[in-house]
Amino acid sequence: MKCAKPIRIISCGIYLPEQMSSETLELKFNLPEGCSKRISGVNNRHHVTFETNGFMGARAIESALTKAELALNEIDLLISAGATYDYPIPSQSSIIKRELYESSEIHFPVFDINSTCLSFVSAFEVAAKLLDGIQYKRIIIVSSEIASKGLNPAHPETLTLFGDGAVAFILEYNARENSMYLNSYFETYTEGAFHTIIRGGGNVNYFRNNPFTEEMYTFEMHGLEMLKLAKKTMPKFVETMLKDMSIDIENIDVIIPHQASKTGIQLFEKMFSFKPGQVKSNLENFGNCIAASIPLLLHQSIEQGELKRGNLCLLIGTSAGFSIGGLFFKY
Amino acid sequence: MKCAKPIRIISCGIYLPEQMSSETLELKFNLPEGCSKRISGVNNRHHVTFETNGFMGARAIESALTKAELALNEIDLLISAGATYDYPIPSQSSIIKRELYESSEIHFPVFDINSTCLSFVSAFEVAAKLLDGIQYKRIIIVSSEIASKGLNPAHPETLTLFGDGAVAFILEYNARENSMYLNSYFETYTEGAFHTIIRGGGNVNYFRNNPFTEEMYTFEMHGLEMLKLAKKTMPKFVETMLKDMSIDIENIDVIIPHQASKTGIQLFEKMFSFKPGQVKSNLENFGNCIAASIPLLLHQSIEQGELKRGNLCLLIGTSAGFSIGGLFFKY
Repeated sequence: MKCAKPIRIISCGIYLPEQMSSETLELKFNLPEGCSKRISGVNNRHHVTFETNGFMGARAIESALTKAELALNEIDLLISAGATYDYPIPSQSSIIKRELYESSEIHFPVFDINSTCLSFVSAFEVAAKLLDGIQYKRIIIVSSEIASKGLNPAHPETLTLFGDGAVAFILEYNARENSMYLNSYFETYTEGAFHTIIRGGGNVNYFRNNPFTEEMYTFEMHGLEMLKLAKKTMPKFVETMLKDMSIDIENIDVIIPHQASKTGIQLFEKMFSFKPGQVKSNLENFGNCIAASIPLLLHQSIEQGELKRGNLCLLIGTSAGFSIGGLFFKY
Repeated sequence: MKCAKPIRIISCGIYLPEQMSSETLELKFNLPEGCSKRISGVNNRHHVTFETNGFMGARAIESALTKAELALNEIDLLISAGATYDYPIPSQSSIIKRELYESSEIHFPVFDINSTCLSFVSAFEVAAKLLDGIQYKRIIIVSSEIASKGLNPAHPETLTLFGDGAVAFILEYNARENSMYLNSYFETYTEGAFHTIIRGGGNVNYFRNNPFTEEMYTFEMHGLEMLKLAKKTMPKFVETMLKDMSIDIENIDVIIPHQASKTGIQLFEKMFSFKPGQVKSNLENFGNCIAASIPLLLHQSIEQGELKRGNLCLLIGTSAGFSIGGLFFKY
């Protein structure tokens, strides 16, 4: 494997805010009973009450550090990988680090990576390339996402689909064990650049001149367009990726797809011949948590013993932009 | 040099919107004549009129590609490195790619890196680690920043200091030439997390519940606090960095510091013994362009022949968060 590198996931942790069942959501927004499950396939998701991205991210990191019996001063870099944020400035990673630790004695660096729903996968690739046992021995990647605030109550398709949550992974350069980053592959198709968008709040529709309206400031998803583009690009992408990775699909033990939508997951599952249980899903209980979806499902597969040491695992997903990405590693 | 890698800057390009002289700015905002130069040391900066981050970024990239006689399909990855953006979703990099090219035939991937003013330096490090001549042969880094929209007219300190602009660099894995990425070093001090902030627009002060006010939605800089923290942390940082890089300061041909502020630059210049002309500056004519400042100055040093092939160059700066970073390479 031409890009293989001894990178090991040594720990992971999560933080989930309060559950928001479809029943409660439907009552709250005056939606027909049972429509959430029907429209988006989601029974439960989590919505923040008091939590910020920074708060959730810090708690997820603390959980991962505790499990690994590591202290903060044994970390060399923190990457915040996500699309939502507490403040436009400074970077989300500095806010998360501040929530972890207020003093300046521990001064490992931080930065943000954003490729929306694929941010964790992009950050995993970047961390794998940065980790060398010299400059960087251990890197935390944290995806802390709050989707619930940016949803339009008039759009049940997205209102019932998205959830909040945070996940942290600690990656280590470790040549003693058998874990490996193996390969990764990404593509961006600009014809889908505006299929998923929040129009207001940046420099194009600056808030000074654009008072708040749900239409301008909430998340807009052209689901059908996204699906069409995925259908058109995904088969060739997966074929190229697997060829590039020199692997057959049946030899992958665990496949963790982004939990984009019920239809998206079904489309992916029908596109290829998977073995029973090979492709994991948690959409029903978590919804689409933007960049946190893939690591939440990865965390769950590890915790439940479905992904075992030595197993081959593929992370794969699509994101706003429109991008497709896959990362292949031996856990 | 333990981390050295044959990475070569093969081209760079810029896009600058209309000049905004201090005279015009002072008239526009009813400021005392000559106050800009006195407060911030800036005579000229550039402010967007019709331009977006995407537009400027794409034009800077086109210029860099033309100079290198490269086509877009010879690029393997685009990193957008900056703090300001056109839309909260999708990523700035997908918007820039869309401005370059609307079809989907050329589908190299994109993602964003954000460490505010240090974004270009972080992205340079990441690109140097990703480039391997196999997965990634050529990477574009683009910093396209619009500071002018987020400034508070009631704060002359920031109003006169910041400017807009875009810069693109093309980096290549190239083992035939003598160019080298040598080392990089970053630190983040959380006690400065809130010294530079835009309070509104993210999830903490979400716009649905916070109508626009200048105080809430514009950039707030506690310059004195930043300076104090820089004064406290910078000498030790530079000492550690140079030791880590095994180099003496006098052997560096060109030093490109972030153009944070007049006082910040003066503080840095007084902190160490530099040779005349060793430390470059363009604050007077460009202002502080957030993440675009360092690459704009680097571009200028290359264009004016001050940085020559084979020269040793250090990029160094501070950013919101509060972070310090340095990257050392042989041009």
